[in-house]
Amino acid sequence: MNVVNVQDKLDLFSDHWHPRIIAELNGQAVKIAKVKGDFIWHAHKEEDELFFVIKGTLFIEFRDETKTIREGEMLVIPKGVEHRPYAPEEVSLMLFEPLQTKHTGTVDHEMTKTHLESI
Amino acid sequence: MNVVNVQDKLDLFSDHWHPRIIAELNGQAVKIAKVKGDFIWHAHKEEDELFFVIKGTLFIEFRDETKTIREGEMLVIPKGVEHRPYAPEEVSLMLFEPLQTKHTGTVDHEMTKTHLESI
Repeated sequence: MNVVNVQDKLDLFSDHWHPRIIAELNGQAVKIAKVKGDFIWHAHKEEDELFFVIKGTLFIEFRDETKTIREGEMLVIPKGVEHRPYAPEEVSLMLFEPLQTKHTGTVDHEMTKTHLESI
Repeated sequence: MNVVNVQDKLDLFSDHWHPRIIAELNGQAVKIAKVKGDFIWHAHKEEDELFFVIKGTLFIEFRDETKTIREGEMLVIPKGVEHRPYAPEEVSLMLFEPLQTKHTGTVDHEMTKTHLESI
């Protein structure tokens, strides 16, 4: 059992759109990522996904609207809902989702990370 | 789909040791609570539990050590591990755990809240 300092973990990397696992529990993972620029349209077939913004302002485009998630705010995206995150300025975020969730969902793309490290 | 501001939700209540649900996903709940003083010894038989400190300093006593969790830090307590949270000063925290998790685990106590509201 180790106490995890989220900012210390964020300081370990600087690449974008590459989540790392910082905790696991009940088959779920807590992941962190830094993002900047545009991600791709995707959906997760079987998993709801939670975004919690640690720093910055994240936008998530849906087919009919765009949500703005600011520091200290969270949004749950239900399974099956197509979404496209983007961030004009760098955002640090925390994700809570099942361990097996791929960040590009059912889409296979050059941005897809097939193996996520625990840090 | 609603964006949830964690601090706004914390501002809705002031009682201690009474978690509220602010998001649900994949059978898991995100809960928030304010705590101050001593909680009871308990364990969760089937569920790992994550504590994430939003504000303040939380202490969690185990049978062989005490962990200190500061603002921006988290700790996962594996199922079955007896623990006793305490907080000399008020702490605001977020919990990730299965929806059905009772905050006093397998212990039935006057502090036990049997039904948690979503706010």
